[in-house]
Amino acid sequence: MAPPPAAQGMSSSLRKSKVTVVGSGNWGSVASRLIASNTLRLDSFHDEVRMWVYEEKLPSGEKLTDVINRENENVKYLPGFKLGKNVIADPDLEHAVADSDMLVFVTPHQFVEGICKRLVGKVGKDVEAISLIKGMEVKKEGPCMISSLISEQLGINCCVLMGANIASEIAEGKFSEATVGYRQNRVIAEKWVQLFTTPYFSVSPVQDVEGVELCGTLKNVVAIAAGFVDGLEMGNNTKAAIMRIGLREMKAFSKLLFPSVKDTTFFESCGVADLITTCLGGRNRKVAEAFAKSGGKRSFDELEAEMLQGQKLQGVSTARELYEVLSHREWLELFPLFTTVHEISTGRLPPGAIVEYSEHKPNFSLVQGSALYA
Amino acid sequence: MAPPPAAQGMSSSLRKSKVTVVGSGNWGSVASRLIASNTLRLDSFHDEVRMWVYEEKLPSGEKLTDVINRENENVKYLPGFKLGKNVIADPDLEHAVADSDMLVFVTPHQFVEGICKRLVGKVGKDVEAISLIKGMEVKKEGPCMISSLISEQLGINCCVLMGANIASEIAEGKFSEATVGYRQNRVIAEKWVQLFTTPYFSVSPVQDVEGVELCGTLKNVVAIAAGFVDGLEMGNNTKAAIMRIGLREMKAFSKLLFPSVKDTTFFESCGVADLITTCLGGRNRKVAEAFAKSGGKRSFDELEAEMLQGQKLQGVSTARELYEVLSHREWLELFPLFTTVHEISTGRLPPGAIVEYSEHKPNFSLVQGSALYA
Repeated sequence: MAPPPAAQGMSSSLRKSKVTVVGSGNWGSVASRLIASNTLRLDSFHDEVRMWVYEEKLPSGEKLTDVINRENENVKYLPGFKLGKNVIADPDLEHAVADSDMLVFVTPHQFVEGICKRLVGKVGKDVEAISLIKGMEVKKEGPCMISSLISEQLGINCCVLMGANIASEIAEGKFSEATVGYRQNRVIAEKWVQLFTTPYFSVSPVQDVEGVELCGTLKNVVAIAAGFVDGLEMGNNTKAAIMRIGLREMKAFSKLLFPSVKDTTFFESCGVADLITTCLGGRNRKVAEAFAKSGGKRSFDELEAEMLQGQKLQGVSTARELYEVLSHREWLELFPLFTTVHEISTGRLPPGAIVEYSEHKPNFSLVQGSALYA
Repeated sequence: MAPPPAAQGMSSSLRKSKVTVVGSGNWGSVASRLIASNTLRLDSFHDEVRMWVYEEKLPSGEKLTDVINRENENVKYLPGFKLGKNVIADPDLEHAVADSDMLVFVTPHQFVEGICKRLVGKVGKDVEAISLIKGMEVKKEGPCMISSLISEQLGINCCVLMGANIASEIAEGKFSEATVGYRQNRVIAEKWVQLFTTPYFSVSPVQDVEGVELCGTLKNVVAIAAGFVDGLEMGNNTKAAIMRIGLREMKAFSKLLFPSVKDTTFFESCGVADLITTCLGGRNRKVAEAFAKSGGKRSFDELEAEMLQGQKLQGVSTARELYEVLSHREWLELFPLFTTVHEISTGRLPPGAIVEYSEHKPNFSLVQGSALYA
């Protein structure tokens, strides 16, 4: 017999939340591990954390999920770290999310749309989602935010978690920070913060989904610029200047697209800290450095093939997509760094142009919102 | 015969400004070189740039000023770069500033007070000054801003110029940026911008003297923290997080002391860019790294003596002075990173405490201006 509505409401607020992690790569496994340590500790969550795993056969002939569930370790994507006994790998997407109250999306960004399509109608309207996926697509009409995609496809609320989060360093328990971006509901944001925070992983909520999510994508373009500077051996002054100009363009672009974006978001982990991490290490920086060292003679395609074992650089494709948005809206002159990164990476300009062009101070009086660079 | 008042006013606005650089170390010589290239080019300035040189005898027995004026090169502090024939070295401070309309102060900070005392009454009230000196003293009652010291002692207006400015990289023509902080007079700020800007040195004005100047001092304390993280080999996530927390404390401290300080100042070259440069290279970071590598067993005094040939680290003394301000005002808990840098550098805490303590989020509701960390 169904309980009366009042009791139902009460029981639902007391009910322990069930968490499913949709994704099980390197970052997905680290996230599951963080979350699993907290669901055991906190009364408001079910102990068990379900982790959807895209099933693979390991060289041993065993299934990845079987090994994860036996060893409590993702031997393929996070070897050497126990996930926690309460992490249950599940190869069946629909089964993995059934009865779940909180969904953590952490797959490569190109798979999100397909996954959401499979989940349409299978997820309750009061389920809460969060996206840890960096690298949404930037389409001509503007960026296609992963959080919006999830939200619209499934008809649920979706927060984001971004920051200076090199997964392997978090797994090793090295101190890191992250930012949760939320739209309206501060209570939900605090719940996500609770679910992720550990003594070495410090999470802060910010009411600015778009700002937080755009930081995660746009910083890769700045990292390409920083890599050019490294390859040209221009020194720390120039690198810092280029990073600063990049941060300025990230802020200005985000605010042009979403006037609700806050300046203060760029001081959070998702902003300045993630930018620093990405411009110090990171593969975008590294390949761009090699590109500049070759004087632009070796293409990004060639260098990616050689240096990244089949992975593609997000910075280069984001720069191309950004270029389309900027030229479509006639904003190219407002974003000299973004524009120049694309023109260098396609060979239209030499690597040294990154400095020559980026330093131009754009004239924002021509567009609405002329205080953007204030 | 003196001209009538109207003509006098007109002639003064048409008069070419004479510039004197007070100081001739590495940064002073680079500044003179930048300025001298512009005074030749711009009609609003006298070609000649006077540079006050603290006279020294070179090993050859010659006087430094004689060699500078013969070779157009500061062979001691900026060897290998011509200053420009229009830079005139002058060992007589009072003579060097006589008739000058614009004074550029760029000496070690401990000499400023003595220099100003010698200039009292020798400088007209309509002379404009700018300070390039980083590292003002932080006294118990608050920081003693160099720009205020100059302004008060000489009764003249004083701007500041700060930024990610490693002098040797600027001398080599590597692209850099800087920020001019001004109080009221935008016209004067623009004039300083004109005087310093070159194709590879990009200068922007900001109406926030205190914010700009505080950035230049406080970043050295953050660089000490970043050096600890490097020495402990904690990786880029942690380093970026510590830099971000440091930037947050720089901003909060500046705003607590001077409510007029603007958030946007920290996005300028003097803020985030200078912080990045200082935390990537720089001697504060380097010696702090060595300190942490020794597990705090070798003192800063010992390491400074070994690594810096008689120079002292500004970060360590600023951290000590800051600590006094914070404890005097009962703000220690609000600034865990600043506080912990001092406690580590005096041996009261181990280097690893930089992370353990800095991550505490301060409770600003206890003090006026609780939106400081917003």
